[in-house]
Amino acid sequence: MLNDYAEWLAFAKKLAVTAGDLIIDARQSSTFVRDYKADHELVTSTDLAVDQYICSSITERYPEHRILSEESSPAMDLGGIVDGTPVWVIDPIDGTVNFAHGHFHVAVSIGLVVGQERILGVVYAPFLNECFWAMKGEGAYCNNKKLLVSGAKTLRSALVATGFPYQKTDLPPIVDRVSRVLQNCQDIRRNGSAALDLCWVAAGRLDAYFESVKPWDMAAGALIAEEAGATLGLYLPQTGVWPDAINGEGLLVSTPDLYQDLLALVDVSL
Amino acid sequence: MLNDYAEWLAFAKKLAVTAGDLIIDARQSSTFVRDYKADHELVTSTDLAVDQYICSSITERYPEHRILSEESSPAMDLGGIVDGTPVWVIDPIDGTVNFAHGHFHVAVSIGLVVGQERILGVVYAPFLNECFWAMKGEGAYCNNKKLLVSGAKTLRSALVATGFPYQKTDLPPIVDRVSRVLQNCQDIRRNGSAALDLCWVAAGRLDAYFESVKPWDMAAGALIAEEAGATLGLYLPQTGVWPDAINGEGLLVSTPDLYQDLLALVDVSL
Repeated sequence: MLNDYAEWLAFAKKLAVTAGDLIIDARQSSTFVRDYKADHELVTSTDLAVDQYICSSITERYPEHRILSEESSPAMDLGGIVDGTPVWVIDPIDGTVNFAHGHFHVAVSIGLVVGQERILGVVYAPFLNECFWAMKGEGAYCNNKKLLVSGAKTLRSALVATGFPYQKTDLPPIVDRVSRVLQNCQDIRRNGSAALDLCWVAAGRLDAYFESVKPWDMAAGALIAEEAGATLGLYLPQTGVWPDAINGEGLLVSTPDLYQDLLALVDVSL
Repeated sequence: MLNDYAEWLAFAKKLAVTAGDLIIDARQSSTFVRDYKADHELVTSTDLAVDQYICSSITERYPEHRILSEESSPAMDLGGIVDGTPVWVIDPIDGTVNFAHGHFHVAVSIGLVVGQERILGVVYAPFLNECFWAMKGEGAYCNNKKLLVSGAKTLRSALVATGFPYQKTDLPPIVDRVSRVLQNCQDIRRNGSAALDLCWVAAGRLDAYFESVKPWDMAAGALIAEEAGATLGLYLPQTGVWPDAINGEGLLVSTPDLYQDLLALVDVSL
């Protein structure tokens, strides 16, 4: 099994870096076009092209595996996730708005779950040339450097990242959380890529991150944060739409010492 | 006069890049120590060392000029600003929290005002190797590429940056602004460096930026944004503490088409 994992990880890293090259090329040649999904979320032709590259590469190499992808199969039947078939969870560009605006905070996110377990995660930031990766039980890394969460112990010294939904319904509890975090923590960051926010918690660059996100935003980054020593949990009532391993409905990730205090802050029902 | 300006600009660019090298060295060798000012604002030994380098270099080269610096002379008597003496306005590290946390969004900010005019501005981001600069009437540049604000015309498509104060008093109007912007605009970014936010508006990476900031945060970036075609103004009642050219009390900077609509959003007294 570990041999499989190592092979899958090497494959995922190679995929992510090649996908990152496609993203850099698209920006440099300004060849991408913008469109909007039904919920006003931005998508570019590069998201679709990179998705096509990643998914077809996986299908060719592992035809028996399944793929849950933001762009091509966001409503996949998840029966496969509990029957033990490996499921690749893909966001071809996490931070599409950043990509379209020329920012650096952009990532390719590739996670793999088997049954109810996150097995591996690769998050590659092509414009910063940083490849974050983790394999279950084997630690988390950025390029070849081992990652460890920060030593932050108090809210007052905590730098906390968050994100906001594209849909503008139900903003009051979101603004309420921002207000509580601003009041009690050092500061907020809103960088625009959930996958990288998770990796930055892993790297100790952020002390915590909270947001309600989709499986493809968090499957890889959650394992990377976990393997770097972060505590993960959920602050929203659950709808049960997604299996636990890829469920980001109200995701809170932080250093172990901060977790309970932050949970009390962002659970605005308390 | 233009000869003076060109000489001052070349000098400022060289200063900023050398200061940036000191910042990179300090991070790589992890030699800096953290401290907190009276208002809980973080300061590191690198802020102080870089300030000392910049200020002593200016004093040596232009002993008749004056210096307003965040770290060494934040309460300087500003009589000199109206008598026509050139005044250098310095933030050795804009984005100190980012610097201390290993982020990339960090800048050296060097502005120069004469009388009531912003004459030149240099904002150098050492970890991204981008030098933004402008001279009054001569346009704005990133490295050698001319800058132009984005073509954003509607709030709904606007990506808007902001920042939050270190002091936790009077947060309600700040949260109110965040709420209004979230409701009406595409999204918010909170990157952690006011000087770079201004430059990113200039570069079209952001469509707008608002925050209440100090002279050293904005003197250089405001000119860079202005020279790239941005509209600048203020959304707060003014206290008259700072001369107009370096006054950031409620600073709003955006593409010309967005300005009035954004002003109506962030002026929460309306």
